Amino acid sequence: MKKLLTLTFLLLFFTAHSQDSILIKSKVANAIGELREFVAIPNDALNADDIDSNLYWLRKKFTERGFNSTILETEGLPLFFAALPMDDNKPTILFYMHLDGQSVDATKWDQPDPYKVVLKSKTEDDWKTESFSELNDDINYDWRLFGRSTSDDKGPIIMFLNAIDALKKDAIDIPFNVKVILDSEEEKSSAPLPQAVRTYKDLLKADFLVINDGPVHVSGKPTIVYGCRGITTLSITTHGPIKPQHSGHYGNYAPNPGFQLAQLLATMKDTNGKVLIKGYYDGISLDDATLAILKSVPDNADVINSNLAISNPEKVGGFYQEALQYPSLNIRGLGSGWVGEKARTIVPATATAELDLRLVPESDGTKLKNLVKEHIKNQGFHIMNTEPTLEDRLKFDKIVTIKEGSVTDAFRTDLNNPFGNNIVKTMESKFGEKPVQIRIMGGTVPISPFINELKIPAFIVPMVNPDNNQHSPNENLKIGQIAYGIKLFYALLSPSKTE
Amino acid sequence: MKKLLTLTFLLLFFTAHSQDSILIKSKVANAIGELREFVAIPNDALNADDIDSNLYWLRKKFTERGFNSTILETEGLPLFFAALPMDDNKPTILFYMHLDGQSVDATKWDQPDPYKVVLKSKTEDDWKTESFSELNDDINYDWRLFGRSTSDDKGPIIMFLNAIDALKKDAIDIPFNVKVILDSEEEKSSAPLPQAVRTYKDLLKADFLVINDGPVHVSGKPTIVYGCRGITTLSITTHGPIKPQHSGHYGNYAPNPGFQLAQLLATMKDTNGKVLIKGYYDGISLDDATLAILKSVPDNADVINSNLAISNPEKVGGFYQEALQYPSLNIRGLGSGWVGEKARTIVPATATAELDLRLVPESDGTKLKNLVKEHIKNQGFHIMNTEPTLEDRLKFDKIVTIKEGSVTDAFRTDLNNPFGNNIVKTMESKFGEKPVQIRIMGGTVPISPFINELKIPAFIVPMVNPDNNQHSPNENLKIGQIAYGIKLFYALLSPSKTE
Repeated sequence: MKKLLTLTFLLLFFTAHSQDSILIKSKVANAIGELREFVAIPNDALNADDIDSNLYWLRKKFTERGFNSTILETEGLPLFFAALPMDDNKPTILFYMHLDGQSVDATKWDQPDPYKVVLKSKTEDDWKTESFSELNDDINYDWRLFGRSTSDDKGPIIMFLNAIDALKKDAIDIPFNVKVILDSEEEKSSAPLPQAVRTYKDLLKADFLVINDGPVHVSGKPTIVYGCRGITTLSITTHGPIKPQHSGHYGNYAPNPGFQLAQLLATMKDTNGKVLIKGYYDGISLDDATLAILKSVPDNADVINSNLAISNPEKVGGFYQEALQYPSLNIRGLGSGWVGEKARTIVPATATAELDLRLVPESDGTKLKNLVKEHIKNQGFHIMNTEPTLEDRLKFDKIVTIKEGSVTDAFRTDLNNPFGNNIVKTMESKFGEKPVQIRIMGGTVPISPFINELKIPAFIVPMVNPDNNQHSPNENLKIGQIAYGIKLFYALLSPSKTE
Repeated sequence: MKKLLTLTFLLLFFTAHSQDSILIKSKVANAIGELREFVAIPNDALNADDIDSNLYWLRKKFTERGFNSTILETEGLPLFFAALPMDDNKPTILFYMHLDGQSVDATKWDQPDPYKVVLKSKTEDDWKTESFSELNDDINYDWRLFGRSTSDDKGPIIMFLNAIDALKKDAIDIPFNVKVILDSEEEKSSAPLPQAVRTYKDLLKADFLVINDGPVHVSGKPTIVYGCRGITTLSITTHGPIKPQHSGHYGNYAPNPGFQLAQLLATMKDTNGKVLIKGYYDGISLDDATLAILKSVPDNADVINSNLAISNPEKVGGFYQEALQYPSLNIRGLGSGWVGEKARTIVPATATAELDLRLVPESDGTKLKNLVKEHIKNQGFHIMNTEPTLEDRLKFDKIVTIKEGSVTDAFRTDLNNPFGNNIVKTMESKFGEKPVQIRIMGGTVPISPFINELKIPAFIVPMVNPDNNQHSPNENLKIGQIAYGIKLFYALLSPSKTE
């Protein structure tokens, strides 16, 4: 048996797929086994018992690696915390990952059980199931593991644990104190996190935060992300007749709420998608160094446009990454009367636009909402936050009812932060090229409030493939990304000089 | 029994409610009985057997009055036609009414069976059921008959039949040939009618048409209507990304179809509701005589505005009746993404506005649709009538998909038509004041194509109360309107000199 294993490792060593060391390859093989075990424990945060089983498993795995771990009670489900023995002379790195996964609808998956990992190879048009025994001869880095949370976010946890093993095996003296916080409700918006930071302030204390969640850049290249946009919402409703009216009897007489809304919305943006509301982009300026970083992201505009099937993107920025540096004003929904087969010949009573505003650190959500409201007022509308009464309706010509959503702030770490510079340098030396540096992601991650609460520099260092079907059926993880993750965690936790 | 009846009639003659003759009162009493009998035969045009039973009953009733009647087969349900013996020297009047009624949902009515007429008196806040035997002593003109089609449109048919009886009783020589066409599918849009006119051209030949459908003016006064607006529709869809996109990843980059639509719609009308599309109001001019007729309609703007709960109507016309002389451009529906609780943070793939265009005789529906399309083109949109292909999407910046609805023309008879003048004069002399003259109704009646096909002057002479709950639960007919209808039919069919 031992002989066979040795032979396998030798074979692996000489495969064309990868130049990885025997150590890394053995850790990848071990990680696949552990990930299968971990995925087999369902992790839908709607089921607290599932989460408990995952916490129990994690405690065992982290303890085996020499971590001290503890379960942190919160207002919601408990968090998992682990740390290696501390040395006051070292800076502290805090890793954030999450153990919960999106709910599954097994009928929509191409495998019987989303919690039972299936190994697949890619054929010309489809996926072919492979036996795990095939991996004994050769760990094919292009094959993938299919199952819930393989990528989001159990895979990175397993990569981390196996990197720790490799560091031990090589007797590397980690130059940081290492802390790990694992979230149990990331897919449910991580509501308990900000309060947990306040409660467990001392325990979580660190010099910088590394978040291992989400995919690498679409190019597949090593990636570091410095921030992500925040979000808030506005729901805007204009008012016509108090009840829907017959469009024959009242068309040309009863004010049409749809035209009022269209006229109002049309004043908010120009035809290039630029917001015309005064002060909306105030405080944002992109210097040459920043623009250079934005331009260095290997986005392919032709591919993006062709995926969206558009000939002409909006012109808020000159290119995709630049556009994301600004807050957005998006009509995510419009509704009035009925459309399609249900359309009826009425003058509707109301028309509603649902707006979402993606925020950047320069644009406070409350400030932006107030600018929009001020703008609406300047268009001659009387603003209310309730349904207008009969008295209001007879008093004011044009009434808008506005409902405001809560604000999730953006976060963005300075591009020149020394911990960030160090991560970039490490990635560059490990993978032979500068990583893709994303100054700010377009989307909003639910842990932003947690990040802002911690008040330390934060970096998202994603580990998984961009086409991982995150949140969808057939979520998967490319085996090559496991190797990538183990190597990256290894490098990040090694002394700079030795790399 | 005969003595009692005589006494009843004497009593009726002296009631304060009405100065009506014994003859009219007796006809009202008879009409109530016949209407109860007629309403008892269900008349939902979705059920052909119901319609047959109604036709059978009508044939008996018209034959009793000396009419020759026939059932006219059509592409849909059969029509009922009746005529009194013809005299080539007399002009011919064709009456249009309909025997079918809206479907009923008995659970929404305040009576067990909408086809079993219930007699009610009005109390301060509500309706009180009365026994029909109460009518033997005194036919209270304020009481009402509740049941499906009491007003729409069986009531007028019964009024007509009883007016014929009264004319016979008084041995009046009717100065017209009298023809009657009764529709079986008015509530289903009268689809077979235009073709039926072509098939039965000779039979339907007449000098003018009188339509007895719909309610009198809201003031309750005698009313004549010279026309009604037509209608057509346009469905306008703008296109963003080919599939809904994450508003974080693509807000500020993927074109937003909602803003495109808002910007397009905003160019179509000014804030007073006036259409800005070139040529939209061409050909419409209202001379002083016409304006005088429009102003003579006893509309109460305060009441209308208060019913709609608006402070400021649109300004297409200076007042309600004037507004109806123009075609409308109404947003009857808006849809994009989701609104309310279902709202999701996406850049939607499409945004749709459903428009209806109410037409007047000067504004041909096809012409107006072309003007709107020309306008959209001038705003830089590429117009299609199908979903854009990938090729279209990459070729054109801004694409609109337009679906056109069919056109139902308006009709309007000249205010100076001699037959119309005669009706007005007759009404004036009968009721002591000029009737309300509506030049054109805002709504569209499904028989407009039939009216236009006949190519003869047409007048709507409504018989029933404006608050009759037409098309709704608790449809009703005021007994006073039965007397009104019998007297008006009687007068219209009497020689001018004798009135």
